[in-house]
Amino acid sequence: MTLDDLEQRIAQRAAASPDESYTAKLISRGMEKCAQKVGEEATEAVIAAVTGNRAELVKESADLLYHLLVVLKAADIPLGEIMAELDQRTGQSGLAEKAARKEQN
Amino acid sequence: MTLDDLEQRIAQRAAASPDESYTAKLISRGMEKCAQKVGEEATEAVIAAVTGNRAELVKESADLLYHLLVVLKAADIPLGEIMAELDQRTGQSGLAEKAARKEQN
Amino acid sequence: MTLDDLEQRIAQRAAASPDESYTAKLISRGMEKCAQKVGEEATEAVIAAVTGNRAELVKESADLLYHLLVVLKAADIPLGEIMAELDQRTGQSGLAEKAARKEQN
Amino acid sequence: MTLDDLEQRIAQRAAASPDESYTAKLISRGMEKCAQKVGEEATEAVIAAVTGNRAELVKESADLLYHLLVVLKAADIPLGEIMAELDQRTGQSGLAEKAARKEQN
Repeated sequence: MTLDDLEQRIAQRAAASPDESYTAKLISRGMEKCAQKVGEEATEAVIAAVTGNRAELVKESADLLYHLLVVLKAADIPLGEIMAELDQRTGQSGLAEKAARKEQN
Repeated sequence: MTLDDLEQRIAQRAAASPDESYTAKLISRGMEKCAQKVGEEATEAVIAAVTGNRAELVKESADLLYHLLVVLKAADIPLGEIMAELDQRTGQSGLAEKAARKEQN
Repeated sequence: MTLDDLEQRIAQRAAASPDESYTAKLISRGMEKCAQKVGEEATEAVIAAVTGNRAELVKESADLLYHLLVVLKAADIPLGEIMAELDQRTGQSGLAEKAARKEQN
Repeated sequence: MTLDDLEQRIAQRAAASPDESYTAKLISRGMEKCAQKVGEEATEAVIAAVTGNRAELVKESADLLYHLLVVLKAADIPLGEIMAELDQRTGQSGLAEKAARKEQN
């Protein structure tokens, strides 16, 4: 499975009835609820990471990716735009990367 | 570019000197710093999402994906494990999805 | 020092020039920047808590309280309103507390 | 009500049975669950702040303060230590504050 596949599954679920799909129900509750889930799953991934809980980190990373893609769906942003942004940034040489990041942070 | 490509680029950067690569430097600072970045980028993505700032949401989503993959690299978890977890969960029917999520949340 | 004292100090700082006060500068950058700091400090407090880093937890809790009060200042919400809300909730008996929380979560 | 009062109420609740008190139950579930709540409430406060939802910001700020004090209770850190840290930092002159913060961030 790829992230593109996940984007497609989320699009299918989003088109279902909120009574039948968690995804459709979440989107129907609005962007704030979708974004709130991203914040919650990020916190859980952070906790799993720093406590060295490998199994939890796998699960929470999956949850975080899933809910991030739900937010992007709710915002009508194709995953391709995010990947293009990532391609542009990470295609730089190591030194350029370092300089760009330093300015950013 | 795919998420697999990003995983490869991060692996390459992680092998570089911390003086030449932001990625290598971040990983050298330890898991807590890597995880902290996931929390920060998630907050920024949440703010962009709920304020309807589309351009910011693209950038912050890219940052969040990037730093999540850095955490996974630091934890020696292949992206494939996360995608297998997502495949298992989202391959269910809508109703099963709903039931599974309800229990979970 | 009490939280009321902190509220007063933040009000004093907020009235200073952004060139002379971190607080005034942060508020001048807008609510999103103030709120972002709350998210960041919360992440750092969470990491300190779950890794058992007592000294860090003291510092990050102080940072979190501080930035929460900056957000309240930026939103023109007196601390008294938050304390009244807390009084109302926690003044309940243990059983009522339990029931109220269960519904809420 | 003051934050000291809240600290006392939380101490009382923490001593109750987990069946009768939300606070006692949360603490009995361990530091990770307590810290997770801080992360969740912070996300909700951030969302309320940046969307200008005043009533929600009052509620979520109360929730955040409450759960932060639960974490401190679980870590056996008296609130007084946090307030002493805040007193030390914010007792500086505006210029010193600025310099100290700049280094920190």
